[in-house]
Amino acid sequence: MKRDPPADTREDFPHLLEIQTRWADNDAYGHVNNVVYFAYFDTIINRFLIDAGLDIHGAVIGVCVESQCRFLQSLAFPGRVEAGMRVFKLGKSSVTYQIGIFGGDGGLAALGSFTHVFVDGKSRRPVPMPASLREALEKISRAG
Amino acid sequence: MKRDPPADTREDFPHLLEIQTRWADNDAYGHVNNVVYFAYFDTIINRFLIDAGLDIHGAVIGVCVESQCRFLQSLAFPGRVEAGMRVFKLGKSSVTYQIGIFGGDGGLAALGSFTHVFVDGKSRRPVPMPASLREALEKISRAG
Amino acid sequence: MKRDPPADTREDFPHLLEIQTRWADNDAYGHVNNVVYFAYFDTIINRFLIDAGLDIHGAVIGVCVESQCRFLQSLAFPGRVEAGMRVFKLGKSSVTYQIGIFGGDGGLAALGSFTHVFVDGKSRRPVPMPASLREALEKISRAG
Amino acid sequence: MKRDPPADTREDFPHLLEIQTRWADNDAYGHVNNVVYFAYFDTIINRFLIDAGLDIHGAVIGVCVESQCRFLQSLAFPGRVEAGMRVFKLGKSSVTYQIGIFGGDGGLAALGSFTHVFVDGKSRRPVPMPASLREALEKISRAG
Repeated sequence: MKRDPPADTREDFPHLLEIQTRWADNDAYGHVNNVVYFAYFDTIINRFLIDAGLDIHGAVIGVCVESQCRFLQSLAFPGRVEAGMRVFKLGKSSVTYQIGIFGGDGGLAALGSFTHVFVDGKSRRPVPMPASLREALEKISRAG
Repeated sequence: MKRDPPADTREDFPHLLEIQTRWADNDAYGHVNNVVYFAYFDTIINRFLIDAGLDIHGAVIGVCVESQCRFLQSLAFPGRVEAGMRVFKLGKSSVTYQIGIFGGDGGLAALGSFTHVFVDGKSRRPVPMPASLREALEKISRAG
Repeated sequence: MKRDPPADTREDFPHLLEIQTRWADNDAYGHVNNVVYFAYFDTIINRFLIDAGLDIHGAVIGVCVESQCRFLQSLAFPGRVEAGMRVFKLGKSSVTYQIGIFGGDGGLAALGSFTHVFVDGKSRRPVPMPASLREALEKISRAG
Repeated sequence: MKRDPPADTREDFPHLLEIQTRWADNDAYGHVNNVVYFAYFDTIINRFLIDAGLDIHGAVIGVCVESQCRFLQSLAFPGRVEAGMRVFKLGKSSVTYQIGIFGGDGGLAALGSFTHVFVDGKSRRPVPMPASLREALEKISRAG
């Protein structure tokens, strides 16, 4: 825990989505449970992919092979939450996103990463990601 | 299942809230799981109560004593969902809401009810609901 | 709420399953959230159906058309919870279960019902339930 | 993704807990959703802490400051899942656990880590962890 805390702001994320908190997001400690942040990640990422043309009932699906999150500030229902998304690393069949979670005051509440490998839905073997998806992901890459 | 299906429309609900679907709302059958509708209920109800002045960390809390839902149409992430809320029955310390869930085409996807009893957070004994809450609930009562 | 509270005991349910509570089952009020009881229902019912031969990736799936629950006592993680299941009404393509939820002291914490209609996974039209399923359900019917 | 996959077995974890899968753990892809693994982490960790004497309604609470998971194999409801837990790093007020998730065949399905900082429930400032907790954690430390 000696690392400097990340200092990312909303401007560091080319794609933003407001996240609606739910009553059940709060755990017995009265704040959004750590697990729920990963549900936020899943939601912003999958909505982006679907909007970019991924057919979740199609032949190619995205499988999460690694995810991680640093928690910096508490959030609580019914507070306002925003998620930011950018592509950190883009491969042929895999992509690593970075996700920022911002609270109602605009401060960074959490910073996470999430790696998808695109696979054939049946064999579950890696396949190149569809071109339209790749194009959309390039537009939100860090250097993009 | 011989009863007529309900024919409520958005206009039958004085309070409406857009509900943001999440990836995890879809179950293995690719549609929003029946359990998740109750999470939608909890979210619109508790946001309404909090906006009406209920302090969820205060002395009086609302405890669900009964809930029920009829499911009429499938919903799926990332589709648009809207919830409607009205008060069906208002007692001294209890209230029964009716909740409509509408899909992206505006059709009624589910109709449910939910009864809250307000209790002392420590003794868990029923107490009269706060006057400000009662006033807010009267405004969205069916006859209101 | 003038109705008598139900007095069912564990012995009134021919099928029982211990339910493992999770940290996230507790909500901000420190007890198992009302929504989670329906997740318990889904779990005992679907495990029963799968054990009775239902292929959840097959042609016929069970769709919930109505569910309901009365909440009688609080439960909390990490407490012990047990669910009981019986068939209340068995039709050609539909079945209504009753589910009892029991706390660590063996007392009835909740009593609910849940109606499944078996449909063709593609057309979503009702179909007769598989004979093996029907046979298993008859064995846990109230009069059975 | 060029790193060798971890080769941990059940024997590498001094504390084990069977995890009961739920219907809703499966997502639209028919396998346990990545988010749910973190709910498994929360459950084995908090049960361990409570059994070791942590009072979750008391003055000191554990707050997650970082978590991470590598996903190696799919799991699915209603399959059998087991979680293993060990302490990787033990500080004065913080502890990092490693969690292994094993499928029905005993193979490693996921390997994660999770860091708790113990704080005063009101000020949310770090405090030394209770002695009884520390003792219990030492017993499941990697070298222990």
